[in-house]
Amino acid sequence: MKKFINNVDNLLTESLQGFAGAHADLVRLNLEPNFLTRANKANDKVAIISGGGSGHEPLHSGFVGYGMLDAACPGHVFTSPTPDQMIAAAEAVESGKGVLFIVKNYAGDVMNFEMAAEMLPFKNATVLTNDDAAVINSSYTTGRRGVAGTVIVEKTVGSLAETGADLAACKTLGDKVNLHCSSMGVALTSCTVPAAGRPTFDIGDTEIEMGVGIHGEPGRRREAMRDAKTLVTDMVNAILEDFKQKDMPLNAKSEVLLLVNGFAATPLMELYLIYNEAAQILKDKGITIARSLVGNYTTALDMAGASITICLLDDEIKQHWDSPVHTAGLRWGK
Amino acid sequence: MKKFINNVDNLLTESLQGFAGAHADLVRLNLEPNFLTRANKANDKVAIISGGGSGHEPLHSGFVGYGMLDAACPGHVFTSPTPDQMIAAAEAVESGKGVLFIVKNYAGDVMNFEMAAEMLPFKNATVLTNDDAAVINSSYTTGRRGVAGTVIVEKTVGSLAETGADLAACKTLGDKVNLHCSSMGVALTSCTVPAAGRPTFDIGDTEIEMGVGIHGEPGRRREAMRDAKTLVTDMVNAILEDFKQKDMPLNAKSEVLLLVNGFAATPLMELYLIYNEAAQILKDKGITIARSLVGNYTTALDMAGASITICLLDDEIKQHWDSPVHTAGLRWGK
Repeated sequence: MKKFINNVDNLLTESLQGFAGAHADLVRLNLEPNFLTRANKANDKVAIISGGGSGHEPLHSGFVGYGMLDAACPGHVFTSPTPDQMIAAAEAVESGKGVLFIVKNYAGDVMNFEMAAEMLPFKNATVLTNDDAAVINSSYTTGRRGVAGTVIVEKTVGSLAETGADLAACKTLGDKVNLHCSSMGVALTSCTVPAAGRPTFDIGDTEIEMGVGIHGEPGRRREAMRDAKTLVTDMVNAILEDFKQKDMPLNAKSEVLLLVNGFAATPLMELYLIYNEAAQILKDKGITIARSLVGNYTTALDMAGASITICLLDDEIKQHWDSPVHTAGLRWGK
Repeated sequence: MKKFINNVDNLLTESLQGFAGAHADLVRLNLEPNFLTRANKANDKVAIISGGGSGHEPLHSGFVGYGMLDAACPGHVFTSPTPDQMIAAAEAVESGKGVLFIVKNYAGDVMNFEMAAEMLPFKNATVLTNDDAAVINSSYTTGRRGVAGTVIVEKTVGSLAETGADLAACKTLGDKVNLHCSSMGVALTSCTVPAAGRPTFDIGDTEIEMGVGIHGEPGRRREAMRDAKTLVTDMVNAILEDFKQKDMPLNAKSEVLLLVNGFAATPLMELYLIYNEAAQILKDKGITIARSLVGNYTTALDMAGASITICLLDDEIKQHWDSPVHTAGLRWGK
């Protein structure tokens, strides 16, 4: 294992200190318990808080700032944060309108955020993201996993919260956007958790893991590597089938956001090639790609691979996608 | 070799089509000859054009847009673009005030941009970037290599050009910013050029290449892998020594931009840890880090590794760094 670290125990703290130093205009870091808040506390809005295991950056710390999160609680690599982090973060950013937790559906995250919610002295609600179409139940979940669609949930709910909308409205939009997102990932390589020191799984030189999770957990099946067109076709078809299963089939009247998300080690050049293939498939079906995002937004440490997320848009989701955002990971309009 | 491609011959075209599709609000793609321009042609300004081999994305295509480049000419992977691309790009974007080429110092790029400059029916000038402190001369260069400092040159010169400054002023600023930048990279792994199908160089599980180039070309020496602190110390010291050699030693009155650039496969978590180490070293010397950038900006296909660039700031450079930019790869203030 070759990584830019000093020792495994300090990796998270040192990385967070670097993040907070590089983005001192945007964020403030609290250590023990670990959480990040905006540099300038927002007032009179629902406090939007997310968190989860580290190793998925820029998710979630990179989305703290105007128009997205008020705070993020980073756990150790691929390990849930603990309730004390969430409670301290909530106490730092709550401004009278309650707290909305955005939580990816993994057993540890769900348990810890539930405990925090019970102990929180503020009214609160939780949006659970589970956009991964790959598997129903998995090694770390009961039910579907939350993956890159979480970025779209955080962006849109964060936008709505800036308007002064109440907790119930933010929760309703978050649940809707999550339902409107469906994702499918593929791994070309494993990732290596620093504390483990060896790849999470073995994969051959001509194999891929179709439907892989963002921790390297198994997907649908091990398959043979093949060209991008057939890989992307299988991924998009899995997503389209998922929309059918959700009774919201995409058709020639559908407008979508197409997100091609890198897991970290796949070059941008290849992500854009994936985008090109996915876009062609959608256009051939008459589906309009009204918004696009390509890059590394929900990563899996050092994994080579990518996921595709399709978000079915409506006017409300478009409005809150387009609105200004000012974070380390997403920035526009301000 | 596992990559998201269909075939090696079409990789560049398909990736460019994906890029242009995903960023249709920002850019237009011309094929044969290949070049990208802004979606909306700018008028009455020096046309800023860059280009080079592909595989370094977002450099240069990702920097086409308001406040940076008017056009970019992508060559095949790690291969210089040809003069017909540069001439066609110049004809598409020139608006009466001449053309400034920004060229990384590699033999092929220099030769092809020089040929284009000679054939160009517009007044023109060239800024040659050579910020890499690692080696004097190398496998692809006479003289120092141009690396991630090129991003800072493109940003600042692009900003100045938006003000209506003339060709000579843009060239002068570009040369100054290049001189004010010094960079040092390290590779943990090789990269794999798709057409070659195998890693560019062999490197052991406990080795690094100190001073590596962005094509995987040799740096200063093969060294043993060690902790981030000592690696980063060596990189920063090499940069500080380079500033001394340039007769502009950094000291407690210096303000700098600190850029930690990933070569593609190194997770953001590690890049921020590198930033933390580099920032500490500079602060200990009393050097002020007035601006920061951390991420994958000048990549080397799928290489794991990173470079550090320090740019010595003055008021003019700060002004043109801070000014609005609206590209796929850098965006703020607009």
